[in-house]
Amino acid sequence: MIVVLKPGLTPEEIQRVVKRIEGFGLRAHISVGKERTIIGAIGDERLLVDQGLESFPGVEKVLPILKPYKLVGREFQKEDTLIEVCGRQIGGKRIHIMAGPCSVESREQVLAAAIPVKEAGATFIRGGAFKPRTSPYTFQGLGEEGLNYLAHARQITGLPIITEVLDPRDLDVVCRYTDIVQIGARNMQNFKLLTEAGRAQKPVMLKRGMSATIQEFLLSAEYIAAEGNRKIILCERGIRTYETETRNTLDLSAVPVLKRLSHLPVFVDPSHGTGRWDLVGPMALAGIAAGADGLLIEVHPNPEEALSDGPQSLKPKKFAILMEQIRRVAQAIGREV
Amino acid sequence: MIVVLKPGLTPEEIQRVVKRIEGFGLRAHISVGKERTIIGAIGDERLLVDQGLESFPGVEKVLPILKPYKLVGREFQKEDTLIEVCGRQIGGKRIHIMAGPCSVESREQVLAAAIPVKEAGATFIRGGAFKPRTSPYTFQGLGEEGLNYLAHARQITGLPIITEVLDPRDLDVVCRYTDIVQIGARNMQNFKLLTEAGRAQKPVMLKRGMSATIQEFLLSAEYIAAEGNRKIILCERGIRTYETETRNTLDLSAVPVLKRLSHLPVFVDPSHGTGRWDLVGPMALAGIAAGADGLLIEVHPNPEEALSDGPQSLKPKKFAILMEQIRRVAQAIGREV
Amino acid sequence: MIVVLKPGLTPEEIQRVVKRIEGFGLRAHISVGKERTIIGAIGDERLLVDQGLESFPGVEKVLPILKPYKLVGREFQKEDTLIEVCGRQIGGKRIHIMAGPCSVESREQVLAAAIPVKEAGATFIRGGAFKPRTSPYTFQGLGEEGLNYLAHARQITGLPIITEVLDPRDLDVVCRYTDIVQIGARNMQNFKLLTEAGRAQKPVMLKRGMSATIQEFLLSAEYIAAEGNRKIILCERGIRTYETETRNTLDLSAVPVLKRLSHLPVFVDPSHGTGRWDLVGPMALAGIAAGADGLLIEVHPNPEEALSDGPQSLKPKKFAILMEQIRRVAQAIGREV
Amino acid sequence: MIVVLKPGLTPEEIQRVVKRIEGFGLRAHISVGKERTIIGAIGDERLLVDQGLESFPGVEKVLPILKPYKLVGREFQKEDTLIEVCGRQIGGKRIHIMAGPCSVESREQVLAAAIPVKEAGATFIRGGAFKPRTSPYTFQGLGEEGLNYLAHARQITGLPIITEVLDPRDLDVVCRYTDIVQIGARNMQNFKLLTEAGRAQKPVMLKRGMSATIQEFLLSAEYIAAEGNRKIILCERGIRTYETETRNTLDLSAVPVLKRLSHLPVFVDPSHGTGRWDLVGPMALAGIAAGADGLLIEVHPNPEEALSDGPQSLKPKKFAILMEQIRRVAQAIGREV
Repeated sequence: MIVVLKPGLTPEEIQRVVKRIEGFGLRAHISVGKERTIIGAIGDERLLVDQGLESFPGVEKVLPILKPYKLVGREFQKEDTLIEVCGRQIGGKRIHIMAGPCSVESREQVLAAAIPVKEAGATFIRGGAFKPRTSPYTFQGLGEEGLNYLAHARQITGLPIITEVLDPRDLDVVCRYTDIVQIGARNMQNFKLLTEAGRAQKPVMLKRGMSATIQEFLLSAEYIAAEGNRKIILCERGIRTYETETRNTLDLSAVPVLKRLSHLPVFVDPSHGTGRWDLVGPMALAGIAAGADGLLIEVHPNPEEALSDGPQSLKPKKFAILMEQIRRVAQAIGREV
Repeated sequence: MIVVLKPGLTPEEIQRVVKRIEGFGLRAHISVGKERTIIGAIGDERLLVDQGLESFPGVEKVLPILKPYKLVGREFQKEDTLIEVCGRQIGGKRIHIMAGPCSVESREQVLAAAIPVKEAGATFIRGGAFKPRTSPYTFQGLGEEGLNYLAHARQITGLPIITEVLDPRDLDVVCRYTDIVQIGARNMQNFKLLTEAGRAQKPVMLKRGMSATIQEFLLSAEYIAAEGNRKIILCERGIRTYETETRNTLDLSAVPVLKRLSHLPVFVDPSHGTGRWDLVGPMALAGIAAGADGLLIEVHPNPEEALSDGPQSLKPKKFAILMEQIRRVAQAIGREV
Repeated sequence: MIVVLKPGLTPEEIQRVVKRIEGFGLRAHISVGKERTIIGAIGDERLLVDQGLESFPGVEKVLPILKPYKLVGREFQKEDTLIEVCGRQIGGKRIHIMAGPCSVESREQVLAAAIPVKEAGATFIRGGAFKPRTSPYTFQGLGEEGLNYLAHARQITGLPIITEVLDPRDLDVVCRYTDIVQIGARNMQNFKLLTEAGRAQKPVMLKRGMSATIQEFLLSAEYIAAEGNRKIILCERGIRTYETETRNTLDLSAVPVLKRLSHLPVFVDPSHGTGRWDLVGPMALAGIAAGADGLLIEVHPNPEEALSDGPQSLKPKKFAILMEQIRRVAQAIGREV
Repeated sequence: MIVVLKPGLTPEEIQRVVKRIEGFGLRAHISVGKERTIIGAIGDERLLVDQGLESFPGVEKVLPILKPYKLVGREFQKEDTLIEVCGRQIGGKRIHIMAGPCSVESREQVLAAAIPVKEAGATFIRGGAFKPRTSPYTFQGLGEEGLNYLAHARQITGLPIITEVLDPRDLDVVCRYTDIVQIGARNMQNFKLLTEAGRAQKPVMLKRGMSATIQEFLLSAEYIAAEGNRKIILCERGIRTYETETRNTLDLSAVPVLKRLSHLPVFVDPSHGTGRWDLVGPMALAGIAAGADGLLIEVHPNPEEALSDGPQSLKPKKFAILMEQIRRVAQAIGREV
């Protein structure tokens, strides 16, 4: 960490800063320049994060040198993390497509989505039983009943399932049913939930918060990893910007950035990322081309009657066509579906 | 709600849209224009929110006419909500300043902040015992021990206290100690926590999410109100933008906007809103001038040694000077502190 | 255009709004609902844009139905616009890659970029002679001397050139040399420059402004089209968001959105869009997969010594490898390079 | 400037970076840490800006220490800049209110705004003759005819005038009429216009670009100052964010930030900053409380019929009431109007 001092300090004032740094167990290396004196704080600079050094008398600014996360970082582990889920390997050459309805609405609806997505080549079924909804007056999900329908669909299709958890108190019941636990964008900084998910030892799909920086995203993953659970999948799902043509702005450059900074698999959710079914196709292909390890795609047997997110859901027939295109683009970049 | 149809639909296609609208119990009023046919969906349009009408065949776009929230809206209740807390009235002519440290660190530290802020004119003590921290490696708060120190400070100073809750499981214990429950920016869309806070019947300070629109902010307040708890204070605390000189961009125009849309009291947090102690003063005064009903200000006896948010904390002496200035600006606009 | 009235207006107040609308030559269709009365303003609603109807007494809000642009819109022209430049067709099945240095620095430097990019398959040479620079103290471009070097590179390679113009007063000289005139992001709303470019009758590459909505982007294109010049290429080059890992956030969903709303060709600039050479490859491929008609890529023979934008420039060898990958992805989606 | 090296470099690789730095005339100070080696580049680091050091082999990141601007910075000049315009001093204790219509529409309209704003206490008249408009189909301003009407209003009221210039070719004619030249948000990075305005020696009001950082804003001011014109007024006018309740988000914290970084006077434009006349009052007061040296306020004798920006214009009567409130808040913070 570099500490830039204000101009014109006395040697005593400089020594106070040095002592503060040394008090955290780091070594201070002073470098006197023509316009500024700077101090290099050498050692584990994570100990200085949020310690208010910026407000210390005489300090002008503080520049970090190292990343604030560790376990999820590429420096800690050079090789890509591979996650085994029911005999499928996530993070390797093979790209995984997880598809299904936004909300679980009924036993029939899940099946009517699950069967055709399996036929088209999806390898996981997604569906929400606990739904985070902006308004208290809209459908909040079926809860455990919905988890049952998902388990039924798994039994029929043989595909593993992924579903979201909202509340630490629901984690046990969700883990009893699901193969991958999803933590949604709104809960990316629900640190209690992250900690509990870290303890639960199920694979976790962590979605990027609506306005989370990549560094905050990785720090949230670090919360899970710090509890001993390294089976984490990162998912880019669109960030909030001023543009209103799309519900969010899908930040596909996050894919290669995350792959460079971290060893964890990275997915893309073009359905939430755009909020429009007619953009899901192009953005799914673009996500693959950008290097994603998989996609989360909403498929509904009858989007016009969906209880949530109909506008961004594909019909099974369109999904099957998209799967063909995904296959070709994956091949073009040396991967497979 | 206005439903704009694509050009060139057949009468049958138009009738399908009409039936879908009527299926939700609304009346459809068709209006044929030269370039577009539009349908007015008349009735409780909240029932159509998130129902995917945008993806219905033949529909080009859907324009809401009414607000999606109700109980917290100015149309539902014309007069300002006044909230009584320990004999103090929030939302009236009197402006309330809630001050204290970001994190509760020790019994002595809380007192060393609480006593001088009371003397300077603060009417509530703030302090965090459960802390949401970006990194798992930094101080996470003292938990119930911290609540004890806050209660002790209340006993000594006679000022009521406000503190944050992060987890639905901690709500009971927090409510046993605090006078106002704070729900922080990162939990503004933690809907389970909102619902529980709605049931708890304590006054709630709800902070605006980092990238929440004003409409989403009010919908989150609606979650609390829908459980029967109308004692809600809204708090603007800065939104995320591209600017990096400040930690967040304090959106002071949210104050008059919220006062127009809602009957709830509106506070401003210039400490988190800027992240820099040297900007707290100007933004506190600006917040009052913009019409805020109160402020949340971080004061620490020794900001250089704070375990969190030192850079944005005022020393008690600077806080006392600021209180004088706040008093003068409040008076200039016909209010009092 | 839909005009929503405030509740509780008298018939006379409603008639005043009707008269105001009719004063602009539109027909007013009143629709009385339970909670709101709305007026449909039927006719050329572009005449009502910016006319302050929102502030008219009794008006609550105004909702546009039609797009504010016309000539560049898909409704005005169903078929894709094809632009002929020196025998090359832009906007058809073939994807065009325009490559070269950010700034023209010397005759040798341009050639050292132009010759290998041609060999690798680029079909246009890009290079800046007039440079918009954030700081007055950095290299501002070689001006007409730089145009000369570009012309020389065209003569040697046979590839047409594209270069930026900043000032209406330079348009004549730039047009004498270049095959495509580029209007950069910072000038997207330099309306005088747009108007002059519209009169100049050269093909124009219009880059999206740093924080321009897609609607504003198309309205800026409309400025050019309104002067009679329909040879316009749109270019997504990254928008400003809170994320700092990349210089801008490349909004690839803008590609399919623009293709739906407009008939104009759409390019992507992954070099400016990310600001990092190591992200240019993945984002170039993603841009193609998203449906772009071409790419703008910075290539410098010696990026470490570039006078501008070195960090985002590829070396010729890396560019050649990327061209191979682009070719494969293009083929996978049924296009060619 | 601090140059952080990648881990594991050979001494030769480190020496290459050192030589590159020394080649720009700076001194390199190497500091070897446990996890990273860093180089302090000591000297005029502005010479290294945009030189692509980030892409130099072996370099991980580059952290600037000094500000990239000079003449407009507080380090260059400690005392506040005072600007004399027609006997009025801008930047001192006295706050100046510049008021008038968005667009000049007629001789009568300007007078009907100018006379009452003078009576209410405004000290400058604002009005646009050259208008930057998003759409080519809306009113583009009266041009020189409008300047004439403004000059007439100056003659009648005795108040100096401020008006916008869009095109370097119009600068001469605008300077012949106006007392202060305004450069609007859309032209904040029209560097040719900045340079010409720098040469013109008239006081310049420079508005912050819609998505400009404070650093970019000051660098644009530096363009003007670098030509020898130090009579620059900075104006915050709202930035683009995701929030849609207001046309822009007025960033009032920019006021104290700019006052700390620069010696130039800082104004606030609450009319463009919010886009809603009902928010102009609270934001005007908040701007003063935040420390602004003046305000730009749109006043129109008949906002419902304004040819531009009606929704954000005050009627003269409301403006007079606001002036009274401004006076009281100014007094409360020790200033005068």
